[in-house]
Amino acid sequence: MKDCIFCKIIKGEAKSWKVYENENVYAFLDIFPVSKYHTLIIPKKHYENIFDIPEKELLDVMSVVKKIAGLYNKNLGITNVQIINSSGREAQQDVFHIHFHIVPRKIGDQQDILWTTHPEWTNQFDQMLELIK
Amino acid sequence: MKDCIFCKIIKGEAKSWKVYENENVYAFLDIFPVSKYHTLIIPKKHYENIFDIPEKELLDVMSVVKKIAGLYNKNLGITNVQIINSSGREAQQDVFHIHFHIVPRKIGDQQDILWTTHPEWTNQFDQMLELIK
Repeated sequence: MKDCIFCKIIKGEAKSWKVYENENVYAFLDIFPVSKYHTLIIPKKHYENIFDIPEKELLDVMSVVKKIAGLYNKNLGITNVQIINSSGREAQQDVFHIHFHIVPRKIGDQQDILWTTHPEWTNQFDQMLELIK
Repeated sequence: MKDCIFCKIIKGEAKSWKVYENENVYAFLDIFPVSKYHTLIIPKKHYENIFDIPEKELLDVMSVVKKIAGLYNKNLGITNVQIINSSGREAQQDVFHIHFHIVPRKIGDQQDILWTTHPEWTNQFDQMLELIK
């Protein structure tokens, strides 16, 4: 897609540090790393997010996520990672070409996800299940 | 696995609010929700994290992640989600049975991931690529 930075990276029109690629998937170091070896995995074809990517292409991407996690474990001794996809502007998506982050983590890295839980919503679980179906 | 709360949920020995299940995968509402419809997707077989789960089982889980994201989009009008897996204690994993979160998000929900980027590491990208391979 025109003006998509990740499409430009795939076409070689923008610089990237390639970790791995196959026919359908491209993996490269995140230019805004939150940890060493912070990597992005993307489909070569342009899809926006988890909602519009076909299942087959999503699984192709996840195969590479698994492969790279294994590579980092074996070659770099990394044993702690977060895998994150943000789909939608209100979910903090910034580049609108679907991407999965692999973020190696360690104690004291100050990259913790600070979630606030809402136990009061557990009272509504039965109603929620009704609405889902 | 004995003493694994998610294995107990799958066996029906602990209460859960089931969203979906198939032969290999189980999905249920997170008992500590950070947003409405916060859901966990797990393989029925016990694996600890992204490193030890076989590719086939991981893809089974991701098929269900995709299916549920689609269901929430269609039936609940949800258009913003984060998909998160934490693998390893230092990556904030709490239950050591691999699980993927689907967290519906919206502006002002105060569940933002506040990452600190380290642009200085970009100088080391070439060395990192050497070490990965």
